[in-house]
Order: sequence, then C-alpha cells, then structure tokens
Amino acid sequence: VSRSRDSRKAEIVRAAAELWAASGYHGTGVEELSRAVGLQRGALYHHIGSKEALLHEVGRTAIERLLETSAVDVEIAQPEERFRRLSRGLLHDIASNLAEWTVFFREVGWLTGPQRQEIFALRERYEQRWCAALADGAAEGAFRPLDSLDVKAILGMHNYSYLWLRPDGDRSPEDIAERFSDLILDGIRAKEHR
Amino acid sequence: VSRSRDSRKAEIVRAAAELWAASGYHGTGVEELSRAVGLQRGALYHHIGSKEALLHEVGRTAIERLLETSAVDVEIAQPEERFRRLSRGLLHDIASNLAEWTVFFREVGWLTGPQRQEIFALRERYEQRWCAALADGAAEGAFRPLDSLDVKAILGMHNYSYLWLRPDGDRSPEDIAERFSDLILDGIRAKEHR
Repeated sequence: VSRSRDSRKAEIVRAAAELWAASGYHGTGVEELSRAVGLQRGALYHHIGSKEALLHEVGRTAIERLLETSAVDVEIAQPEERFRRLSRGLLHDIASNLAEWTVFFREVGWLTGPQRQEIFALRERYEQRWCAALADGAAEGAFRPLDSLDVKAILGMHNYSYLWLRPDGDRSPEDIAERFSDLILDGIRAKEHR
Repeated sequence: VSRSRDSRKAEIVRAAAELWAASGYHGTGVEELSRAVGLQRGALYHHIGSKEALLHEVGRTAIERLLETSAVDVEIAQPEERFRRLSRGLLHDIASNLAEWTVFFREVGWLTGPQRQEIFALRERYEQRWCAALADGAAEGAFRPLDSLDVKAILGMHNYSYLWLRPDGDRSPEDIAERFSDLILDGIRAKEHR
C-alpha cells in the first residue's frame, strides 16, 4: 500500500513539474493539476498537503537525485576527471529532467519557511561538491587556487543551460559537458600542467 | 505632452518590473499593478495596452539598454579588453536593474507571437556582440577558435548571476567581471600568448 502511495505521489510530482514548466507555478490552478493527474481536489490535497508542499517536492526530487548521482564523483582521485564527471552529471540530469529543473530554477524562490530553507540547504550541499573538487584539485597542484566566485561562474554556466538544452538536441549533454569542461579546465589548470 | 506620456510609461514599466520580480508575472494581478502606479485600470490599459504588452516593454527596455551601452565595445581593438568590457557591462547592467533582469530571465518566455519574436531577436543581436568579439579575437590569433557552445557557456555564466548578484554585495559587479573574465580568458588565450 505504501509503495503504491509513493508511486502515486511520484506521478503527481512529475505531472506538476510538466504543468508548471509549461504554464508557470502561479499560472496553473489546482483544478488543472487535478485534471492532469486524474484526482479530485480533495484526494490531491490528501496526497500532497498544499500547492507549496508540492513545489517543495518537485525541487527536492530534482536536487536529491543530483546529490545521489554525483555522490560517487567524490571518490574520483584525478582532479580533471572529477570535474568532467560533475559537469556531465549535471548537464545530463538537466537535459533528462527539463521540466523539473525549469521549475527548480524559475519557481523554487516562491517557497517560504522551512521548505525554502531545506531546498536552499540541499542546493548548497550540491555546490559544495564542486567547491571540494576544485579545492582538492588546487591542493594537489593540478588547478590554480579558486574562490567562491569561480564556483558561482561554473555552476551558473551549467545551470543556465535549462533554457536552451534539449534532450534530443544536435549535441548530447555529454558532448556539451566536454566542451564546457575544456573551456574551464584550460583556464584553471596550473601553469606547470599546461 | 508626449514626453510626460513617455515618462509615465517608463514609470509603469519600472513598477511592473519591481512587482513581477517580487511576486511573479502570473502571481500579480492588474489590480495590484494599478495600485502600485496610482492609476485606474482603464487609464493603465490606455498607457500599456495589455499585461502581455507590458511584459514585452519590460523585456525590451532591459535588452535595448544593454545593446546601447555595449555598442561602443565593438570599437575596442584589443580582444581581451573587448571581452572584459562586455563582461563588466553585462554584470553592471544586471546588478543595476535586478528587477528588470529577473523578469527578463524568468518571465519573458510567456510572451507570444511577434512580441516574443522581437525580444528573442534582440537577445540574439546581443549574443552576436559576444560571438563577434570572440571570432575577431580568434581571427587575430589572440584566442583559440571558439564555437557557439562556448558563447552559450560564457553568457550563461553571466546571466545566471541575476539569482545571486546584489548591487550592494561584498564585491562590485566590476570585480566579479574581472574574476569571470580571468577564468575564461586564461582558458581561451591562444597558447603562444600565455
């Protein structure tokens, strides 16, 4: 019973992400959402609690999946390969879950209170993956020393792709990640490694 | 008369940008907008035509100002300086007009028809400023050859800053632009110039 409840919830989260990506969080009423998932308003609230709770679920689903898939990258010893894996993982996840990430980047700012804090903390945890990869690379002498602005630049360059990246585009997310990684790695590689 | 009409319109555009940045384009009714600008609904429509026309005005104001201020950068002969000026100009404009750019990056996708096409064409024209700067730099042998993905990476890294850049932040937009420019220029500088 609990498993089917969970899968029903996952379906609702997916449908909400699609609807909101297409028509906006504020632009879509609970009526439309009910219709999309084939549930009465009351049953929908039973599953999700509130519209804001559902927005929180969409955001949490996206960032937790990314934290999970990038967890192994921490183990990679070679700094450039670790960077490339983070880059590939992020662009692959954005391209494969475009609706979720559109809602994430565009709408997650509407969250308030503890739900907002949780999402921002998860995002911060993911940002730390990149900070650690760059700091470890610098400690090993592979990269020049980098600061938080460099991390913001690198993450922004990846994140902004939700506006133009398409899963069936001319170039795969993996190809794009290689190009992005080359652009950055050529600049941050310590001089003696060039 | 026409000048005061224009300045009234500019006030409405500014008020709309502030409101929509804070509460979302779909999350804000025309009532709230009327109150914010101190006009009756009818008078407001007389000035702006429709809510979508006003969104178009906000987007056009932002991108046309940027096209105007970056026009002189085309004249700069030195490729790295030209890049740095584009970077400074973009981050300075985003930081100084955060509400407008928030609406631009987050809401401009709701535009339809010719108004949508016009904004996308203006954005494309601005992107071409960067493409030309990079292509000219490569033609002169200062940069390695770059492609459209590199331009997307560089613009994304700047644009995404609307989510964290603050006009009164610890580091000025100009400092941030230097750091961003170093990150990229160190990577794209042709080998013989390193």
